[in-house]
Amino acid sequence: MITILKGGLSEVRGFSFAGVRAGIKKKGLDLAIIKSEVGSVPAAGVFTSNLVKAASVLLTERNLRGGKLGAVFLNSGRANCFTGARGERDAEEIAGRVARLLGIQPGEVGVLSTGLIGAPLPMAKVRRGILRAVARLSRNREESLRVAQSLMTTDTFPKEFAVATRLEDGTEVRIAGVAKGSGMIRPKLATMLAVILTDARATPGGLRLALRNAVEGSFNMITVDNDTSTNDAVLLLASGLAGGREISARDIDPNFQEALNCVTRELAKMIVRDGEGARHFFEVRVEGARNSYEAKLAALAVAGSNLVKAAIFGEDPNWGRIVAALGASGAYFNPLNLSLWFEGKGKTVYLVREGRPVGNPDRAKDIMRSKEFVIGIQLGEGKATAKAWGCDLTYDYVRINAKYRT
Amino acid sequence: MITILKGGLSEVRGFSFAGVRAGIKKKGLDLAIIKSEVGSVPAAGVFTSNLVKAASVLLTERNLRGGKLGAVFLNSGRANCFTGARGERDAEEIAGRVARLLGIQPGEVGVLSTGLIGAPLPMAKVRRGILRAVARLSRNREESLRVAQSLMTTDTFPKEFAVATRLEDGTEVRIAGVAKGSGMIRPKLATMLAVILTDARATPGGLRLALRNAVEGSFNMITVDNDTSTNDAVLLLASGLAGGREISARDIDPNFQEALNCVTRELAKMIVRDGEGARHFFEVRVEGARNSYEAKLAALAVAGSNLVKAAIFGEDPNWGRIVAALGASGAYFNPLNLSLWFEGKGKTVYLVREGRPVGNPDRAKDIMRSKEFVIGIQLGEGKATAKAWGCDLTYDYVRINAKYRT
Repeated sequence: MITILKGGLSEVRGFSFAGVRAGIKKKGLDLAIIKSEVGSVPAAGVFTSNLVKAASVLLTERNLRGGKLGAVFLNSGRANCFTGARGERDAEEIAGRVARLLGIQPGEVGVLSTGLIGAPLPMAKVRRGILRAVARLSRNREESLRVAQSLMTTDTFPKEFAVATRLEDGTEVRIAGVAKGSGMIRPKLATMLAVILTDARATPGGLRLALRNAVEGSFNMITVDNDTSTNDAVLLLASGLAGGREISARDIDPNFQEALNCVTRELAKMIVRDGEGARHFFEVRVEGARNSYEAKLAALAVAGSNLVKAAIFGEDPNWGRIVAALGASGAYFNPLNLSLWFEGKGKTVYLVREGRPVGNPDRAKDIMRSKEFVIGIQLGEGKATAKAWGCDLTYDYVRINAKYRT
Repeated sequence: MITILKGGLSEVRGFSFAGVRAGIKKKGLDLAIIKSEVGSVPAAGVFTSNLVKAASVLLTERNLRGGKLGAVFLNSGRANCFTGARGERDAEEIAGRVARLLGIQPGEVGVLSTGLIGAPLPMAKVRRGILRAVARLSRNREESLRVAQSLMTTDTFPKEFAVATRLEDGTEVRIAGVAKGSGMIRPKLATMLAVILTDARATPGGLRLALRNAVEGSFNMITVDNDTSTNDAVLLLASGLAGGREISARDIDPNFQEALNCVTRELAKMIVRDGEGARHFFEVRVEGARNSYEAKLAALAVAGSNLVKAAIFGEDPNWGRIVAALGASGAYFNPLNLSLWFEGKGKTVYLVREGRPVGNPDRAKDIMRSKEFVIGIQLGEGKATAKAWGCDLTYDYVRINAKYRT
C-alpha cells in the first residue's frame, strides 16, 4: 500500500524550499526555508517536553495556536535557547522578515533552531541567509537534500524520507519529511527536529492527532543518550493539493496514518543509525508485556542502558545487563517466564528461554558483529508489544561530546 | 563531634572478619566473612529496587525479617543472579555451611554476591573459600582491608571508612563500613554493596530507620551510569558492646545518625570517585528548589546526564547541557531565575546569574582541570537543597564495559 519515493520533499505538491550557507556553523549549509505555495495551510507540531524551551520553540508553539503556517525557517549551529529577551526578539525578527519577503503574516511562520545552547544567533548572517534562501526557493530534488543538509549538526548524513499511499477513497497522497539528530536524543514527547509535508487535505486538529499518534511509536521510541534537548520539534504541514477526503480529528484516514507512521518511523531510525559515534544500530522488540505502557518502558530501558550499549559496542553478548535493565524498567514480569534472543543475519539465537540461560552466549557474537540486529524479549505476562531503537555507546560518542562547544 | 578513624572494620568492637582468595575471579581476593563475636545481633538492610534480584539478595532479605544476623558472607566475581533454582540452593548452602562452622542458625547469615549476572557460583571453590575464611577470622586492621579487597570487581581501590562519635548520653560509639562499586550505579534505593558495623546498642527497627535515613542522602545520591544493579545491598549490624542509650525506631540518637550519615556518604563518594574509567569527580549542589524531592531530581539529573559527563571529561564548560538536564529533570524552575556556577581550587566562577549568561565560559576551564569540583545551581524557587555526586564519561568507561564478560 505504501510506496517509497526517492525525491524527498520534492515529492509533495504545494511546497517550495531552499537550503543555504549563512555562515552560522563553521562550515556547510546551515539555514533553510520551506514555503507553502498555496498560502497559509493547516499545520501541527509536537515539541520538546523540556522545561527550558528555545525562543524559537516558544514562538512556533504560539504561532501554531492558529492551526496554520505558510512557511518554516530552520537553522543549525545555534539553538537560540537560554538567550533571554534578545533570543525572543531574534526569533520574532526572523518570523517578521520571512513573512514580509513571502507576503504572509509573521504569525504564520514556524521558526526552528538547533545547535549550541546559550549563545545568540549571529543575526547579520541570518538576515543575509534569509534573502539568499528566499531567492533560491524551488521544488528540485537536489534542493530537498540541501534542506536536510542545512539541519545537520553532528549528523553524518542528511535525513529525508518520502512515501505515497492511497486514502480509502482512492486519492493518492504523499508525505515527505526531513530530520536531524543526533545527540541529546531521548524519548520524551518529541526528541529531535523534523519537518514533514503532505499534500493531503486536512484540518489542523486532524494533523495534530495524526502527528501525535505517529510520534508515539517513532520519535518517542528512540534513544541515543537519554538526554532531552531544549529544541526538539516536529512540524507537519498539509497543502491539500491532493484533494480527496479531509483528514480531521474525528476522521483520520487509516492509510494516511499508516503512511505518516512510516515516514516518522523511518526518519526516527535514521536518527539512531546516525547516533553520535554509533557503530551498531539495534531494535529492541518487547513482546508479552501486561500493557503497552509497560512494553514501551521495557523496550526503552534496554535501548537506553549505558551498560547494554557499551556491551553492544564490544560485541559482547552480556545478556545479564539486558535482564538488569528490564528489571529496573518499571515493567512487571516474572523472571521465570522471561525469554531473550538476538536476531540478525537471518538467524535467531536464544540466550534465555523461560527463565533459563540456554547454551553459550558467544553463539550470539556473530549476529552482534553485523551493523544492525534485533534484541528480542518475551516477558510472558500478556499480549502487549513495543519496539524501540538504540545505538551503541562508543569511544566516538565520548570524543564528540567531550569537545562539542569548542 | 565525629572523629575519623584509620582502622576500617577493626575499629568496631564485637566483630571479626577475613578476606581470602577462593578462585571465583581470575585473580585477587574474592570471598569474605564477617562474624559477630557476641552471637546473633540486631541488623538491618536496604536492597536493590530491581525487579530481578539475585538469589543472595532474596535470601538475605528473608533472613533479615528476624531482625538479627550473626554473620555475613560476601563474594565477588559472580552475582548469583538469574541462576534459577540452582542459585537459590547455592545461596542456602552457603548460609548453612557458614552457620554450621560458626555455631549459629542458617537464618542468621547474610549472603551478598557481586559480579557477572547469569552464571552460577563455582561451589567447590566457594566451599574451600569458606573454610579458609573461617580459619582466618580476626580483628586485625589488615584483615579489614582484605575484606574490602574481596568485594572489588572493576573497583581500582578498596573502600573502607570508620568514625567514632559520642551519643547524647556521652557513650562513645563507633561505626565502620566497607563498600564496592563501581559500575551499574544508579540512585534507586540501595545502589551497590556495603556492610556497616557498629558497636552501638540498637533494636532492628532503630537500625532500619537510621540506615534508610543515611542511604537517602548518600548511596541514593550517586550515579555512575544510571544502571541499577540486581545485587545492590547495604547491611548494618550492631554488636551493642559500646553500651549506652539504645538506638530504636522511636529514639535515634542524633549523633549516631549523623555519624552513620558520614560513613555512608564517604563510602558513597568513594564509589563515585572510583566510577568506572572516571577521571573527574564532581558534586552537584542544588539550592533554591521548591521542595527536597525536586532538589534531588535536579541534582541527580545533572550528575547523571551523559552529555554533562562527556563535557566534564573534555573539561569543556558547556553549561547549556546543564540547563537542558535541569529542564528535563522534572524539577520546576523559571529559567529567568536560574544561576549556575563552578567551584574549585578555592575559586567560584559564575556562568549564569539570574537567567543571564555572564562572561566567557572558558573562565571555568581551570576549575574543570582539577580532579574534583562543584557544580552549583540556584533554582530561585524556594529553600530546598540537595547534593548529588557523579563522575565523567570517559573512553575508559566504554572500554571497561565493552568487554566485561569476557
